[in-house]
Amino acid sequence: MACEYRITRRVEFSETDLAGIVHYSNFFKYMEAAEHAFYRSLGFSVVARDMDPPVGWPRVHAECDFRKPLRFEDEVEIHLLVAEKRTKSLKLQFRFRKLNASPPEEVARGSLVVVCVTRNVEGMMTSVPIPGEIAERLEVAPAEQLA
Amino acid sequence: MACEYRITRRVEFSETDLAGIVHYSNFFKYMEAAEHAFYRSLGFSVVARDMDPPVGWPRVHAECDFRKPLRFEDEVEIHLLVAEKRTKSLKLQFRFRKLNASPPEEVARGSLVVVCVTRNVEGMMTSVPIPGEIAERLEVAPAEQLA
Amino acid sequence: MACEYRITRRVEFSETDLAGIVHYSNFFKYMEAAEHAFYRSLGFSVVARDMDPPVGWPRVHAECDFRKPLRFEDEVEIHLLVAEKRTKSLKLQFRFRKLNASPPEEVARGSLVVVCVTRNVEGMMTSVPIPGEIAERLEVAPAEQLA
Amino acid sequence: MACEYRITRRVEFSETDLAGIVHYSNFFKYMEAAEHAFYRSLGFSVVARDMDPPVGWPRVHAECDFRKPLRFEDEVEIHLLVAEKRTKSLKLQFRFRKLNASPPEEVARGSLVVVCVTRNVEGMMTSVPIPGEIAERLEVAPAEQLA
Repeated sequence: MACEYRITRRVEFSETDLAGIVHYSNFFKYMEAAEHAFYRSLGFSVVARDMDPPVGWPRVHAECDFRKPLRFEDEVEIHLLVAEKRTKSLKLQFRFRKLNASPPEEVARGSLVVVCVTRNVEGMMTSVPIPGEIAERLEVAPAEQLA
Repeated sequence: MACEYRITRRVEFSETDLAGIVHYSNFFKYMEAAEHAFYRSLGFSVVARDMDPPVGWPRVHAECDFRKPLRFEDEVEIHLLVAEKRTKSLKLQFRFRKLNASPPEEVARGSLVVVCVTRNVEGMMTSVPIPGEIAERLEVAPAEQLA
Repeated sequence: MACEYRITRRVEFSETDLAGIVHYSNFFKYMEAAEHAFYRSLGFSVVARDMDPPVGWPRVHAECDFRKPLRFEDEVEIHLLVAEKRTKSLKLQFRFRKLNASPPEEVARGSLVVVCVTRNVEGMMTSVPIPGEIAERLEVAPAEQLA
Repeated sequence: MACEYRITRRVEFSETDLAGIVHYSNFFKYMEAAEHAFYRSLGFSVVARDMDPPVGWPRVHAECDFRKPLRFEDEVEIHLLVAEKRTKSLKLQFRFRKLNASPPEEVARGSLVVVCVTRNVEGMMTSVPIPGEIAERLEVAPAEQLA
Protein backbone atom coordinates (compact mmCIF):
# COMPACT_ATOMS: atom_id res chain seq x y z
CA MET A 1 0.00 0.00 0.00
CA ALA A 2 1.34 3.39 -0.93
CA CYS A 3 0.02 6.92 -0.58
CA GLU A 4 2.87 8.94 -2.05
CA TYR A 5 5.77 8.86 -4.46
CA ARG A 6 8.60 11.15 -5.54
CA ILE A 7 10.51 11.53 -8.75
CA THR A 8 13.28 13.98 -9.61
CA ARG A 9 14.06 15.37 -13.01
CA ARG A 10 16.23 18.05 -14.52
CA VAL A 11 14.63 20.71 -16.70
CA GLU A 12 15.44 20.18 -20.37
CA PHE A 13 16.14 22.88 -22.93
CA SER A 14 13.12 21.89 -25.04
CA GLU A 15 10.84 22.44 -22.02
CA THR A 16 11.68 26.15 -21.76
CA ASP A 17 10.09 29.02 -23.67
CA LEU A 18 11.24 32.44 -24.81
CA ALA A 19 10.61 33.83 -21.32
CA GLY A 20 13.51 31.61 -20.24
CA ILE A 21 11.33 29.46 -17.97
CA VAL A 22 9.59 26.09 -18.18
CA HIS A 23 6.47 26.42 -20.31
CA TYR A 24 3.48 25.94 -18.04
CA SER A 25 2.07 23.07 -20.11
CA ASN A 26 5.10 21.00 -19.12
CA PHE A 27 4.10 20.96 -15.45
CA PHE A 28 1.19 18.80 -16.58
CA LYS A 29 3.59 16.44 -18.34
CA TYR A 30 5.71 16.31 -15.19
CA MET A 31 2.63 15.39 -13.10
CA GLU A 32 1.79 12.56 -15.43
CA ALA A 33 5.38 11.29 -15.44
CA ALA A 34 5.24 11.10 -11.63
CA GLU A 35 1.83 9.39 -11.76
CA HIS A 36 3.03 6.72 -14.18
CA ALA A 37 6.24 6.12 -12.22
CA PHE A 38 4.07 5.72 -9.11
CA TYR A 39 2.01 3.03 -10.84
CA ARG A 40 5.16 1.25 -11.99
CA SER A 41 6.47 1.33 -8.41
CA LEU A 42 3.30 -0.55 -7.45
CA GLY A 43 3.84 -3.19 -10.08
CA PHE A 44 1.45 -2.16 -12.80
CA SER A 45 1.43 0.09 -15.86
CA VAL A 46 -1.02 2.81 -16.79
CA VAL A 47 -1.28 0.96 -20.10
CA ALA A 48 -2.66 -2.21 -18.62
CA ARG A 49 -3.39 -4.21 -21.72
CA ASP A 50 -3.12 -7.47 -19.84
CA MET A 51 -6.03 -6.71 -17.52
CA ASP A 52 -9.45 -8.10 -18.28
CA PRO A 53 -11.00 -5.82 -19.40
CA PRO A 54 -8.07 -3.53 -20.29
CA VAL A 55 -8.46 -0.25 -18.42
CA GLY A 56 -7.33 3.29 -19.17
CA TRP A 57 -6.98 6.37 -17.02
CA PRO A 58 -8.12 9.53 -18.80
CA ARG A 59 -7.85 12.80 -16.92
CA VAL A 60 -11.15 14.55 -16.18
CA HIS A 61 -9.67 17.50 -14.29
CA ALA A 62 -6.22 19.03 -14.08
CA GLU A 63 -5.03 22.15 -12.35
CA CYS A 64 -1.87 23.84 -11.19
CA ASP A 65 -0.83 26.91 -9.20
CA PHE A 66 2.47 28.39 -10.30
CA ARG A 67 4.41 30.34 -7.66
CA LYS A 68 7.95 30.59 -8.96
CA PRO A 69 9.46 29.75 -12.31
CA LEU A 70 11.66 26.78 -13.13
CA ARG A 71 14.63 27.33 -15.43
CA PHE A 72 16.88 25.22 -17.65
CA GLU A 73 18.84 22.59 -15.72
CA ASP A 74 16.94 23.18 -12.49
CA GLU A 75 16.44 19.97 -10.53
CA VAL A 76 12.82 19.51 -9.61
CA GLU A 77 11.21 17.00 -7.31
CA ILE A 78 7.65 16.05 -8.12
CA HIS A 79 5.96 14.72 -5.00
CA LEU A 80 2.74 12.81 -5.64
CA LEU A 81 0.17 12.26 -2.89
CA VAL A 82 -3.04 10.24 -3.20
CA ALA A 83 -5.65 12.84 -2.15
CA GLU A 84 -8.84 10.87 -2.77
CA LYS A 85 -9.69 7.31 -3.73
CA ARG A 86 -13.17 6.62 -5.01
CA THR A 87 -14.68 3.57 -6.63
CA LYS A 88 -13.98 4.75 -10.16
CA SER A 89 -11.60 7.69 -9.76
CA LEU A 90 -8.52 9.01 -8.02
CA LYS A 91 -7.47 12.50 -7.08
CA LEU A 92 -3.73 12.99 -7.02
CA GLN A 93 -1.91 16.00 -5.60
CA PHE A 94 1.49 17.10 -6.90
CA ARG A 95 4.05 19.38 -5.28
CA PHE A 96 6.95 20.72 -7.29
CA ARG A 97 10.10 21.52 -5.33
CA LYS A 98 13.15 23.15 -6.82
CA LEU A 99 15.98 21.17 -5.25
CA ASN A 100 18.81 23.43 -6.38
CA ALA A 101 17.40 26.42 -4.46
CA SER A 102 18.82 27.04 -0.96
CA PRO A 103 16.83 25.97 0.81
CA PRO A 104 14.78 23.86 -1.65
CA GLU A 105 11.44 25.53 -2.19
CA GLU A 106 7.99 24.65 -3.48
CA VAL A 107 7.50 26.36 -6.84
CA ALA A 108 4.14 24.92 -7.89
CA ARG A 109 1.32 22.68 -6.70
CA GLY A 110 -1.23 20.90 -8.80
CA SER A 111 -3.73 18.08 -8.96
CA LEU A 112 -5.25 15.58 -11.33
CA VAL A 113 -8.51 13.68 -11.21
CA VAL A 114 -8.23 10.48 -13.22
CA VAL A 115 -11.04 8.06 -13.98
CA CYS A 116 -10.72 4.35 -14.61
CA VAL A 117 -12.34 3.43 -17.91
CA THR A 118 -12.68 0.56 -20.29
CA ARG A 119 -13.40 0.81 -23.99
CA ASN A 120 -15.89 -0.96 -26.16
CA VAL A 121 -15.05 -2.16 -29.64
CA GLU A 122 -15.76 1.29 -31.13
CA GLY A 123 -13.29 2.83 -28.71
CA MET A 124 -15.97 4.58 -26.62
CA MET A 125 -14.89 4.92 -23.01
CA THR A 126 -17.06 3.93 -20.03
CA SER A 127 -16.02 4.48 -16.43
CA VAL A 128 -15.58 1.28 -14.43
CA PRO A 129 -14.55 0.46 -10.86
CA ILE A 130 -10.80 0.50 -10.32
CA PRO A 131 -9.70 -3.17 -10.48
CA GLY A 132 -9.24 -4.63 -7.01
CA GLU A 133 -5.62 -5.58 -7.60
CA ILE A 134 -4.86 -1.90 -8.24
CA ALA A 135 -7.18 -0.34 -5.68
CA GLU A 136 -5.75 -2.44 -2.87
CA ARG A 137 -2.29 -1.02 -3.48
CA LEU A 138 -3.44 2.61 -3.24
CA GLU A 139 -4.02 4.45 0.00
CA VAL A 140 -5.13 8.02 0.70
CA ALA A 141 -2.39 10.16 2.25
CA PRO A 142 -2.95 11.35 5.85
CA ALA A 143 -5.02 14.55 6.03
CA GLU A 144 -2.22 16.51 7.73
CA GLN A 145 0.11 15.71 4.85
CA LEU A 146 -2.39 16.98 2.28
CA ALA A 147 -3.06 20.26 4.04
CA MET B 1 -13.17 46.93 -26.11
CA ALA B 2 -13.51 43.18 -26.31
CA CYS B 3 -14.63 40.50 -23.87
CA GLU B 4 -14.32 37.38 -26.01
CA TYR B 5 -12.51 35.83 -28.92
CA ARG B 6 -12.65 32.58 -30.90
CA ILE B 7 -10.06 30.61 -32.80
CA THR B 8 -10.45 27.33 -34.63
CA ARG B 9 -7.77 24.74 -35.15
CA ARG B 10 -7.49 21.20 -36.41
CA VAL B 11 -5.96 18.55 -34.17
CA GLU B 12 -2.49 17.59 -35.36
CA PHE B 13 -0.98 14.11 -35.29
CA SER B 14 1.80 15.18 -32.94
CA GLU B 15 -0.81 16.35 -30.41
CA THR B 16 -2.26 12.87 -29.95
CA ASP B 17 -1.04 10.13 -27.63
CA LEU B 18 -1.15 6.35 -27.66
CA ALA B 19 -4.75 6.43 -26.38
CA GLY B 20 -5.62 7.93 -29.76
CA ILE B 21 -6.75 11.25 -28.27
CA VAL B 22 -5.29 14.71 -27.77
CA HIS B 23 -2.84 14.62 -24.86
CA TYR B 24 -4.32 16.68 -22.06
CA SER B 25 -1.29 18.98 -21.81
CA ASN B 26 -2.14 20.29 -25.28
CA PHE B 27 -5.40 21.81 -24.10
CA PHE B 28 -3.23 24.24 -22.15
CA LYS B 29 -1.28 25.07 -25.31
CA TYR B 30 -4.58 25.61 -27.13
CA MET B 31 -5.76 28.01 -24.40
CA GLU B 32 -2.59 30.03 -24.70
CA ALA B 33 -2.83 30.13 -28.49
CA ALA B 34 -6.33 31.60 -28.17
CA GLU B 35 -5.14 34.10 -25.54
CA HIS B 36 -2.28 35.34 -27.71
CA ALA B 37 -4.50 35.59 -30.80
CA PHE B 38 -6.95 37.60 -28.68
CA TYR B 39 -4.19 40.05 -27.74
CA ARG B 40 -3.13 40.34 -31.37
CA SER B 41 -6.75 41.08 -32.33
CA LEU B 42 -6.56 44.02 -29.89
CA GLY B 43 -3.39 45.35 -31.46
CA PHE B 44 -0.72 44.22 -29.05
CA SER B 45 1.52 41.20 -28.50
CA VAL B 46 2.02 39.17 -25.36
CA VAL B 47 5.72 39.79 -25.96
CA ALA B 48 5.48 43.54 -25.62
CA ARG B 49 9.11 44.52 -25.78
CA ASP B 50 8.23 48.00 -26.97
CA MET B 51 6.32 48.92 -23.83
CA ASP B 52 8.07 50.91 -21.09
CA PRO B 53 8.70 48.95 -19.01
CA PRO B 54 8.35 45.72 -21.05
CA VAL B 55 5.70 43.52 -19.47
CA GLY B 56 5.20 39.78 -19.41
CA TRP B 57 2.20 37.62 -18.58
CA PRO B 58 3.14 34.52 -16.59
CA ARG B 59 0.39 32.14 -15.64
CA VAL B 60 -0.26 31.76 -11.90
CA HIS B 61 -3.15 29.31 -12.20
CA ALA B 62 -4.38 26.99 -14.93
CA GLU B 63 -7.13 24.42 -14.89
CA CYS B 64 -9.24 22.37 -17.23
CA ASP B 65 -12.17 19.96 -17.08
CA PHE B 66 -12.14 17.30 -19.76
CA ARG B 67 -15.52 15.88 -20.76
CA LYS B 68 -14.98 14.20 -24.09
CA PRO B 69 -11.83 13.40 -26.03
CA LEU B 70 -10.57 15.16 -29.14
CA ARG B 71 -9.09 13.05 -31.90
CA PHE B 72 -6.77 13.54 -34.87
CA GLU B 73 -8.14 15.96 -37.45
CA ASP B 74 -11.03 17.05 -35.25
CA GLU B 75 -11.85 20.72 -35.70
CA VAL B 76 -11.97 22.49 -32.39
CA GLU B 77 -13.13 25.99 -31.56
CA ILE B 78 -11.48 27.61 -28.56
CA HIS B 79 -13.74 30.32 -27.21
CA LEU B 80 -12.04 32.77 -24.84
CA LEU B 81 -14.04 34.91 -22.42
CA VAL B 82 -12.61 37.55 -20.08
CA ALA B 83 -13.91 36.33 -16.71
CA GLU B 84 -12.21 38.81 -14.38
CA LYS B 85 -10.13 41.94 -14.82
CA ARG B 86 -8.13 43.16 -11.84
CA THR B 87 -5.45 45.82 -11.54
CA LYS B 88 -2.59 43.39 -12.07
CA SER B 89 -4.22 40.19 -13.32
CA LEU B 90 -6.77 38.67 -15.65
CA LYS B 91 -8.87 35.54 -15.43
CA LEU B 92 -9.69 34.02 -18.79
CA GLN B 93 -12.21 31.27 -19.41
CA PHE B 94 -11.89 28.86 -22.34
CA ARG B 95 -14.51 26.61 -23.90
CA PHE B 96 -13.50 23.88 -26.31
CA ARG B 97 -16.12 22.91 -28.87
CA LYS B 98 -15.72 20.05 -31.31
CA LEU B 99 -17.10 21.52 -34.51
CA ASN B 100 -17.17 18.29 -36.51
CA ALA B 101 -19.61 16.66 -34.08
CA SER B 102 -23.29 16.85 -34.97
CA PRO B 103 -24.35 18.97 -33.31
CA PRO B 104 -21.08 20.66 -32.25
CA GLU B 105 -20.49 19.96 -28.59
CA GLU B 106 -18.42 21.32 -25.73
CA VAL B 107 -15.68 18.82 -24.93
CA ALA B 108 -13.69 20.74 -22.32
CA ARG B 109 -13.68 23.96 -20.32
CA GLY B 110 -10.74 25.61 -18.65
CA SER B 111 -9.36 28.83 -17.24
CA LEU B 112 -6.13 30.73 -16.79
CA VAL B 113 -5.15 33.42 -14.35
CA VAL B 114 -2.35 35.54 -15.79
CA VAL B 115 -0.47 38.28 -14.00
CA CYS B 116 1.14 41.32 -15.56
CA VAL B 117 4.80 41.53 -14.56
CA THR B 118 7.93 43.42 -15.35
CA ARG B 119 11.46 42.16 -14.84
CA ASN B 120 14.44 43.79 -13.19
CA VAL B 121 17.94 43.51 -14.64
CA GLU B 122 18.48 40.11 -12.95
CA GLY B 123 15.31 38.80 -14.60
CA MET B 124 13.31 38.68 -11.37
CA MET B 125 9.60 39.24 -12.02
CA THR B 126 7.45 41.75 -10.09
CA SER B 127 3.72 42.15 -10.65
CA VAL B 128 2.70 45.55 -11.99
CA PRO B 129 -0.61 47.18 -12.98
CA ILE B 130 -1.76 46.20 -16.47
CA PRO B 131 -0.73 49.13 -18.72
CA GLY B 132 -3.65 51.46 -19.42
CA GLU B 133 -3.42 51.05 -23.17
CA ILE B 134 -4.02 47.31 -22.71
CA ALA B 135 -6.50 47.45 -19.84
CA GLU B 136 -8.78 49.85 -21.67
CA ARG B 137 -9.21 47.38 -24.50
CA LEU B 138 -10.28 44.51 -22.23
CA GLU B 139 -13.75 44.10 -20.84
CA VAL B 140 -15.29 41.45 -18.58
CA ALA B 141 -17.82 39.23 -20.33
CA PRO B 142 -21.46 39.50 -19.18
CA ALA B 143 -22.21 37.30 -16.17
CA GLU B 144 -24.85 35.28 -18.03
CA GLN B 145 -22.31 34.39 -20.69
CA LEU B 146 -19.82 33.12 -18.11
CA ALA B 147 -22.35 30.98 -16.26
CA MET C 1 -2.59 14.76 -59.38
CA ALA C 2 -0.53 17.03 -57.18
CA CYS C 3 3.20 17.48 -56.64
CA GLU C 4 3.25 20.31 -54.11
CA TYR C 5 1.32 21.98 -51.34
CA ARG C 6 1.70 25.01 -49.09
CA ILE C 7 0.49 25.80 -45.61
CA THR C 8 1.08 28.90 -43.52
CA ARG C 9 1.26 29.07 -39.77
CA ARG C 10 2.18 31.55 -37.10
CA VAL C 11 4.83 30.62 -34.55
CA GLU C 12 3.29 29.93 -31.15
CA PHE C 13 4.76 30.83 -27.78
CA SER C 14 4.97 27.19 -26.71
CA GLU C 15 7.12 26.42 -29.77
CA THR C 16 9.93 28.76 -28.69
CA ASP C 17 12.78 27.97 -26.32
CA LEU C 18 14.94 30.01 -23.96
CA ALA C 19 17.10 31.15 -26.88
CA GLY C 20 14.00 33.05 -28.04
CA ILE C 21 13.66 31.01 -31.24
CA VAL C 22 11.57 28.07 -32.44
CA HIS C 23 12.95 24.87 -30.96
CA TYR C 24 14.42 22.83 -33.78
CA SER C 25 12.26 19.78 -33.02
CA ASN C 26 9.22 21.82 -34.02
CA PHE C 27 10.37 22.11 -37.63
CA PHE C 28 9.72 18.37 -37.82
CA LYS C 29 6.20 18.89 -36.46
CA TYR C 30 5.66 21.64 -39.04
CA MET C 31 6.76 19.29 -41.86
CA GLU C 32 4.32 16.66 -40.74
CA ALA C 33 1.49 19.20 -40.45
CA ALA C 34 2.12 20.20 -44.08
CA GLU C 35 2.28 16.55 -45.14
CA HIS C 36 -1.03 15.71 -43.51
CA ALA C 37 -2.73 18.82 -44.91
CA PHE C 38 -1.42 17.76 -48.34
CA TYR C 39 -3.05 14.35 -47.97
CA ARG C 40 -6.32 15.95 -46.86
CA SER C 41 -6.20 18.22 -49.92
CA LEU C 42 -6.07 15.03 -52.01
CA GLY C 43 -9.09 13.57 -50.28
CA PHE C 44 -7.57 11.10 -47.88
CA SER C 45 -6.24 11.06 -44.33
CA VAL C 46 -2.91 9.78 -43.06
CA VAL C 47 -5.01 7.77 -40.61
CA ALA C 48 -6.76 5.74 -43.25
CA ARG C 49 -8.68 3.30 -41.11
CA ASP C 50 -11.23 2.77 -43.82
CA MET C 51 -8.74 1.32 -46.30
CA ASP C 52 -8.41 -2.41 -46.66
CA PRO C 53 -5.94 -3.12 -45.21
CA PRO C 54 -5.56 0.05 -43.12
CA VAL C 55 -2.21 1.65 -43.91
CA GLY C 56 0.11 3.85 -41.89
CA TRP C 57 2.99 6.12 -42.86
CA PRO C 58 5.90 5.87 -40.43
CA ARG C 59 8.93 8.05 -41.09
CA VAL C 60 12.16 6.20 -41.86
CA HIS C 61 14.30 9.28 -42.40
CA ALA C 62 13.99 12.93 -41.47
CA GLU C 63 16.41 15.78 -41.87
CA CYS C 64 16.54 19.54 -41.82
CA ASP C 65 19.04 22.33 -42.50
CA PHE C 66 18.50 25.42 -40.39
CA ARG C 67 19.71 28.69 -41.86
CA LYS C 68 17.96 31.43 -39.91
CA PRO C 69 15.88 31.31 -36.77
CA LEU C 70 12.12 31.70 -36.52
CA ARG C 71 10.72 33.74 -33.65
CA PHE C 72 7.41 34.10 -31.82
CA GLU C 73 4.58 35.29 -34.07
CA ASP C 74 6.61 34.94 -37.26
CA GLU C 75 4.49 33.80 -40.18
CA VAL C 76 6.02 30.80 -41.88
CA GLU C 77 5.08 29.11 -45.10
CA ILE C 78 5.86 25.41 -45.33
CA HIS C 79 6.12 24.41 -48.96
CA LEU C 80 5.94 20.66 -49.58
CA LEU C 81 7.24 19.10 -52.80
CA VAL C 82 7.02 15.42 -53.75
CA ALA C 83 10.69 14.61 -54.40
CA GLU C 84 10.45 10.87 -55.03
CA LYS C 85 7.63 8.38 -55.43
CA ARG C 86 8.49 4.70 -55.12
CA THR C 87 6.31 1.65 -54.86
CA LYS C 88 6.29 1.63 -51.07
CA SER C 89 7.72 4.99 -50.08
CA LEU C 90 7.70 8.72 -50.69
CA LYS C 91 10.36 11.35 -50.27
CA LEU C 92 8.97 14.77 -49.46
CA GLN C 93 10.93 18.02 -49.48
CA PHE C 94 9.96 20.98 -47.30
CA ARG C 95 10.97 24.61 -47.60
CA PHE C 96 10.35 27.03 -44.76
CA ARG C 97 9.87 30.66 -45.73
CA LYS C 98 9.51 33.47 -43.25
CA LEU C 99 6.74 35.57 -44.78
CA ASN C 100 7.09 38.57 -42.49
CA ALA C 101 10.69 39.20 -43.60
CA SER C 102 11.20 41.77 -46.39
CA PRO C 103 11.58 40.19 -48.76
CA PRO C 104 10.31 36.79 -47.52
CA GLU C 105 13.25 34.46 -47.13
CA GLU C 106 13.91 30.74 -46.85
CA VAL C 107 14.97 29.96 -43.30
CA ALA C 108 15.17 26.17 -43.40
CA ARG C 109 14.86 23.22 -45.76
CA GLY C 110 14.17 19.62 -44.84
CA SER C 111 12.95 16.27 -46.07
CA LEU C 112 11.10 13.19 -44.94
CA VAL C 113 11.08 9.67 -46.25
CA VAL C 114 7.83 7.95 -45.35
CA VAL C 115 6.97 4.31 -45.94
CA CYS C 116 3.55 2.85 -46.46
CA VAL C 117 2.90 0.03 -43.98
CA THR C 118 0.18 -2.18 -42.74
CA ARG C 119 0.04 -3.85 -39.35
CA ASN C 120 -0.66 -7.41 -38.36
CA VAL C 121 -2.79 -8.28 -35.35
CA GLU C 122 0.22 -7.96 -33.00
CA GLY C 123 0.81 -4.43 -34.29
CA MET C 124 4.01 -5.32 -36.20
CA MET C 125 4.45 -3.12 -39.25
CA THR C 126 5.21 -4.43 -42.74
CA SER C 127 5.86 -2.19 -45.73
CA VAL C 128 3.30 -2.52 -48.51
CA PRO C 129 2.77 -0.85 -51.89
CA ILE C 130 1.10 2.54 -51.66
CA PRO C 131 -2.58 1.90 -52.46
CA GLY C 132 -3.39 2.78 -56.05
CA GLU C 133 -6.08 5.29 -55.12
CA ILE C 134 -3.42 7.26 -53.23
CA ALA C 135 -0.47 6.73 -55.57
CA GLU C 136 -2.42 7.96 -58.56
CA ARG C 137 -3.01 11.30 -56.90
CA LEU C 138 0.68 11.90 -56.18
CA GLU C 139 3.16 13.18 -58.73
CA VAL C 140 6.87 13.94 -58.48
CA ALA C 141 7.68 17.66 -58.71
CA PRO C 142 9.65 18.81 -61.79
CA ALA C 143 13.41 18.43 -61.35
CA GLU C 144 14.05 22.15 -61.77
CA GLN C 145 11.69 22.91 -58.90
CA LEU C 146 13.49 20.50 -56.60
CA ALA C 147 16.97 21.82 -57.34
CA MET D 1 38.87 14.76 -22.83
CA ALA D 2 35.80 12.85 -23.87
CA CYS D 3 34.54 11.56 -27.19
CA GLU D 4 31.31 9.86 -26.13
CA TYR D 5 28.54 9.85 -23.56
CA ARG D 6 25.48 7.76 -22.79
CA ILE D 7 22.17 8.56 -21.14
CA THR D 8 19.20 6.30 -20.54
CA ARG D 9 15.60 7.34 -20.38
CA ARG D 10 12.19 5.72 -20.27
CA VAL D 11 9.62 6.62 -22.89
CA GLU D 12 6.89 8.83 -21.43
CA PHE D 13 3.21 8.69 -22.29
CA SER D 14 3.22 12.26 -23.63
CA GLU D 15 5.96 11.30 -26.11
CA THR D 16 3.79 8.76 -27.90
CA ASP D 17 1.30 9.40 -30.69
CA LEU D 18 -1.88 7.73 -31.88
CA ALA D 19 0.17 5.11 -33.73
CA GLY D 20 1.24 3.92 -30.28
CA ILE D 21 4.89 4.79 -30.84
CA VAL D 22 7.23 7.64 -29.94
CA HIS D 23 6.53 10.60 -32.20
CA TYR D 24 9.54 11.08 -34.43
CA SER D 25 10.08 14.69 -33.37
CA ASN D 26 10.94 13.41 -29.90
CA PHE D 27 14.05 11.62 -31.14
CA PHE D 28 15.43 15.10 -31.77
CA LYS D 29 14.61 16.11 -28.20
CA TYR D 30 16.33 12.95 -26.95
CA MET D 31 19.47 13.79 -28.96
CA GLU D 32 19.59 17.24 -27.45
CA ALA D 33 19.07 15.89 -23.94
CA ALA D 34 22.09 13.60 -24.44
CA GLU D 35 24.13 16.47 -25.87
CA HIS D 36 23.40 18.74 -22.92
CA ALA D 37 24.09 15.99 -20.38
CA PHE D 38 27.41 15.41 -22.19
CA TYR D 39 28.34 19.08 -21.77
CA ARG D 40 27.40 18.96 -18.10
CA SER D 41 29.59 15.87 -17.66
CA LEU D 42 32.47 17.99 -18.97
CA GLY D 43 31.78 20.76 -16.48
CA PHE D 44 29.98 23.33 -18.58
CA SER D 45 26.42 24.16 -19.61
CA VAL D 46 25.04 24.74 -23.07
CA VAL D 47 23.67 27.96 -21.62
CA ALA D 48 27.07 29.43 -20.81
CA ARG D 49 26.12 32.89 -19.67
CA ASP D 50 29.29 33.20 -17.62
CA MET D 51 31.61 32.93 -20.64
CA ASP D 52 32.99 36.11 -22.22
CA PRO D 53 31.41 36.49 -24.67
CA PRO D 54 28.43 34.23 -23.84
CA VAL D 55 28.13 31.53 -26.49
CA GLY D 56 25.18 29.59 -27.83
CA TRP D 57 24.93 26.38 -29.84
CA PRO D 58 22.21 26.54 -32.49
CA ARG D 59 21.68 23.50 -34.65
CA VAL D 60 22.39 23.96 -38.36
CA HIS D 61 21.63 20.39 -39.40
CA ALA D 62 19.73 17.53 -37.83
CA GLU D 63 18.87 14.14 -39.19
CA CYS D 64 17.69 10.73 -38.07
CA ASP D 65 17.10 7.28 -39.53
CA PHE D 66 14.30 5.36 -37.86
CA ARG D 67 14.53 1.57 -38.01
CA LYS D 68 12.20 0.30 -35.32
CA PRO D 69 9.63 2.05 -33.19
CA LEU D 70 9.93 2.87 -29.51
CA ARG D 71 6.87 2.39 -27.32
CA PHE D 72 5.60 3.65 -23.97
CA GLU D 73 7.85 2.66 -21.07
CA ASP D 74 10.60 1.34 -23.32
CA GLU D 75 14.04 2.01 -21.90
CA VAL D 76 16.24 3.68 -24.44
CA GLU D 77 19.95 4.40 -24.32
CA ILE D 78 21.11 7.42 -26.30
CA HIS D 79 24.78 7.04 -27.13
CA LEU D 80 26.48 10.26 -28.25
CA LEU D 81 29.75 10.19 -30.20
CA VAL D 82 31.75 13.24 -31.27
CA ALA D 83 31.98 12.68 -35.04
CA GLU D 84 33.72 15.89 -36.10
CA LYS D 85 35.29 18.82 -34.30
CA ARG D 86 35.95 21.96 -36.30
CA THR D 87 36.99 25.44 -35.24
CA LYS D 88 33.43 26.71 -34.99
CA SER D 89 31.24 23.61 -35.14
CA LEU D 90 30.72 20.06 -33.92
CA LYS D 91 29.10 17.07 -35.53
CA LEU D 92 27.57 14.68 -33.03
CA GLN D 93 26.32 11.19 -33.80
CA PHE D 94 23.56 9.54 -31.78
CA ARG D 95 22.60 5.88 -31.54
CA PHE D 96 19.33 4.86 -29.96
CA ARG D 97 19.28 1.42 -28.37
CA LYS D 98 16.19 -0.18 -26.93
CA LEU D 99 17.50 -1.76 -23.74
CA ASN D 100 14.40 -3.79 -22.91
CA ALA D 101 14.65 -5.78 -26.16
CA SER D 102 16.42 -9.14 -25.97
CA PRO D 103 19.06 -8.62 -27.04
CA PRO D 104 19.10 -4.81 -26.88
CA GLU D 105 18.92 -3.43 -30.39
CA GLU D 106 19.63 -0.22 -32.22
CA VAL D 107 16.33 1.35 -33.25
CA ALA D 108 17.50 4.66 -34.69
CA ARG D 109 20.64 6.61 -35.52
CA GLY D 110 20.93 10.35 -36.01
CA SER D 111 23.28 13.30 -36.05
CA LEU D 112 23.41 16.98 -35.25
CA VAL D 113 25.70 19.71 -36.49
CA VAL D 114 25.89 22.51 -33.94
CA VAL D 115 27.67 25.81 -34.39
CA CYS D 116 29.18 27.95 -31.68
CA VAL D 117 27.78 31.48 -31.86
CA THR D 118 27.75 34.69 -29.94
CA ARG D 119 25.06 37.36 -30.14
CA ASN D 120 25.32 41.09 -30.57
CA VAL D 121 23.08 43.51 -28.69
CA GLU D 122 20.26 43.10 -31.24
CA GLY D 123 20.36 39.33 -30.72
CA MET D 124 21.87 38.57 -34.14
CA MET D 125 24.01 35.44 -34.04
CA THR D 126 27.55 35.24 -35.44
CA SER D 127 29.60 32.04 -35.50
CA VAL D 128 32.74 32.17 -33.37
CA PRO D 129 35.52 29.70 -32.56
CA ILE D 130 34.59 27.22 -29.84
CA PRO D 131 36.14 28.60 -26.62
CA GLY D 132 39.43 26.85 -25.81
CA GLU D 133 38.24 25.70 -22.39
CA ILE D 134 35.42 23.79 -24.10
CA ALA D 135 37.29 22.63 -27.22
CA GLU D 136 40.10 21.09 -25.18
CA ARG D 137 37.63 18.81 -23.41
CA LEU D 138 36.16 17.42 -26.63
CA GLU D 139 37.75 14.72 -28.71
CA VAL D 140 36.66 13.04 -31.93
CA ALA D 141 35.65 9.41 -31.49
CA PRO D 142 37.88 6.77 -33.16
CA ALA D 143 36.93 6.17 -36.80
CA GLU D 144 36.15 2.50 -36.19
CA GLN D 145 33.62 3.46 -33.53
CA LEU D 146 31.85 5.86 -35.85
CA ALA D 147 31.58 3.40 -38.74
